[in-house]
Amino acid sequence: VLRKKIAVLPGDGIGPEVCDEAIKVLEAVADRFGHQFEFETHLMGACAIDATGEPLPDKTLQGCFEADAILLGAIGDPKYDNNPAAKVRPEQGLLKLRKSLGLFANIRPVTAYDVLLEHSPLKNERVAGADMLIYRELTGGIYFGDKGRTEDGEGAYDHCTYDRSEIVRITHLAFQAATTRRNKLTLVDKANVLETSRLWREVVKEIAPEYPDVELDFLFVDNAAMQIILNPKQFDVILTENMFGDILSDEASVIAGSLGLLPSASVGNTVALFEPIHGSFPQGAGKKIANPIATILSAAMMLEHFGLQEEADLVKKAVHNALDKKVLTPELNATSPYTTEQVGNFIAYFV
Amino acid sequence: VLRKKIAVLPGDGIGPEVCDEAIKVLEAVADRFGHQFEFETHLMGACAIDATGEPLPDKTLQGCFEADAILLGAIGDPKYDNNPAAKVRPEQGLLKLRKSLGLFANIRPVTAYDVLLEHSPLKNERVAGADMLIYRELTGGIYFGDKGRTEDGEGAYDHCTYDRSEIVRITHLAFQAATTRRNKLTLVDKANVLETSRLWREVVKEIAPEYPDVELDFLFVDNAAMQIILNPKQFDVILTENMFGDILSDEASVIAGSLGLLPSASVGNTVALFEPIHGSFPQGAGKKIANPIATILSAAMMLEHFGLQEEADLVKKAVHNALDKKVLTPELNATSPYTTEQVGNFIAYFV
Ligand SMILES: CC(C)[C@H](C(=O)O)[C@@H](O)C(=O)O
Ligand SMILES: CC(C)[C@H](C(=O)O)[C@@H](O)C(=O)O
Repeated sequence: VLRKKIAVLPGDGIGPEVCDEAIKVLEAVADRFGHQFEFETHLMGACAIDATGEPLPDKTLQGCFEADAILLGAIGDPKYDNNPAAKVRPEQGLLKLRKSLGLFANIRPVTAYDVLLEHSPLKNERVAGADMLIYRELTGGIYFGDKGRTEDGEGAYDHCTYDRSEIVRITHLAFQAATTRRNKLTLVDKANVLETSRLWREVVKEIAPEYPDVELDFLFVDNAAMQIILNPKQFDVILTENMFGDILSDEASVIAGSLGLLPSASVGNTVALFEPIHGSFPQGAGKKIANPIATILSAAMMLEHFGLQEEADLVKKAVHNALDKKVLTPELNATSPYTTEQVGNFIAYFV
Repeated sequence: VLRKKIAVLPGDGIGPEVCDEAIKVLEAVADRFGHQFEFETHLMGACAIDATGEPLPDKTLQGCFEADAILLGAIGDPKYDNNPAAKVRPEQGLLKLRKSLGLFANIRPVTAYDVLLEHSPLKNERVAGADMLIYRELTGGIYFGDKGRTEDGEGAYDHCTYDRSEIVRITHLAFQAATTRRNKLTLVDKANVLETSRLWREVVKEIAPEYPDVELDFLFVDNAAMQIILNPKQFDVILTENMFGDILSDEASVIAGSLGLLPSASVGNTVALFEPIHGSFPQGAGKKIANPIATILSAAMMLEHFGLQEEADLVKKAVHNALDKKVLTPELNATSPYTTEQVGNFIAYFV
């Protein structure tokens, strides 16, 4: 029997709706296995700005620190989107949350489900069988370096920095993940141009001998952007820095045919965070059409993180069942669509 | 009658073979229209390192300055590739050439040819009709900023900088291009995180009123990486900074079905450079299998740059003819392939 405290940050747009279904599934797991999950909801994102003026209120951060895990819906609202120079933006809350909690590794599985091949933009035979896991460094690089304007106002700068310790810790996680999969790790960088990339290569090569079973290779980021489309099946675990990971993980996410299925985990020194990769989709909010599966699979990653593999596998099996039976929201089942809640109920029922 | 001096940098791998065919086509154009093109060949890349110790010998740079245009094959050799920390690398020659000649805009058309839809990794209906033009800033940003290691040896840094003038000049080129096409310009940036991106948005927005017919929109780079695969037809002209352009232009290049067809131009204050986007493909060198079409279409871009639109159109028509008749190298015609030279001859014949 496990007792866990889960901070829920439903966020904006469809975030609250998909979180509700993931909570329902986690509660079904708790019932069935006798665990105790305690949920506490906090404000973050545009809704937090509206309510408090801050995208990440102190109370929310405090709640996250006290939790065993965080479930995040999605943040973002069009009223802030087209105003990147706005003083307060939902994104700042997300970046501050990552940095404050030390969430240095963002982990995204991309799995091509057979039943969804028709929905993939790629030809079926290219994508069938693809199954990769992306490790994106999340608290370093150009996102968090010095940035600003030059004194004369004519120029701007963003500094990208990495130090060995930042690379070492995520590299171990990525190698360890590869040993539980197909034993292949691809480092993506731009070592033919960037000094930080050369440091990444050095450090990763130094660590490689500790994982003798893992085959390590290297791709320049431009080539990786091509290979992910040309031949996604060649990848097992991909490791890369923050900015490249932002671009490549979003690129890779579309090959599977639906953003609505892809979960993610962000882990670090303390509490871990789980969230669907899709955004807040404000146009869909309140229409009962949001696909809750990505969030439910994020909850499954949370269960794995708690060491509850059997529970996690059961949730994934229930999701597969929904896919097989086409108990799916309109974007994947246009002819006889189910609502967000119906999909959540179906999956929770089979847990 | 036009007299032009063309510096040819065949480079490494298949570079010399594809350049030969482009020269052949340019000579056919000269014959037919009574122009005089004078070709002068220079060393650059791995072959230049082997011969002189330098990837871009002074004599080559001098020859480029004196020319009206540059035709580049491809550079790169595996013996330098897996050694990113090597003191001398072919890439350094390319970066130095871009910077020395002030080639600040790299221009890449991506066209989905109907006859090649089967070769595209994307489902035919997604890619059919796609026709975009990417403007990548080529002499600024993180490629050319300060870079190095911290004093304690534990860290590395790469500085990204842009100033208004660097953004202004390429922005005008991109807007002008849009006015000759479908009047749509998409700026790709990461203005929700980077200060340089916010400067890009500011400058581009300031310039926009000078092109009232062009519809301007903005995409974050991670979203752009998705949209290029999900719906490539939505794009007309894309404008972006150096690093994002490196990644996105390579990503976009694969949707057309063959890297062997895609040309590029790099323009600036003085002489312009034309090159196929494919690399040196060392494994294919000397095997007569390299597709010369990308280089021939690069030569067509050179003709347009010289103001010879009729000549350029004729070359493009001859290329379409080769595509229609399947006079193509093995990667596009596995059953009855033609050699590099045969494809070049066929196209030159129809000019
Ligand atoms: C919203 C934005 C700051 C964020 C990022 O770039 O990291 C998002 O794109 C993501 O990938 O989670
Ligand atoms: C070889 C490398 C330095 C170069 C770049 O990154 O600019 C190449 O990838 C390109 O796109 O021309």
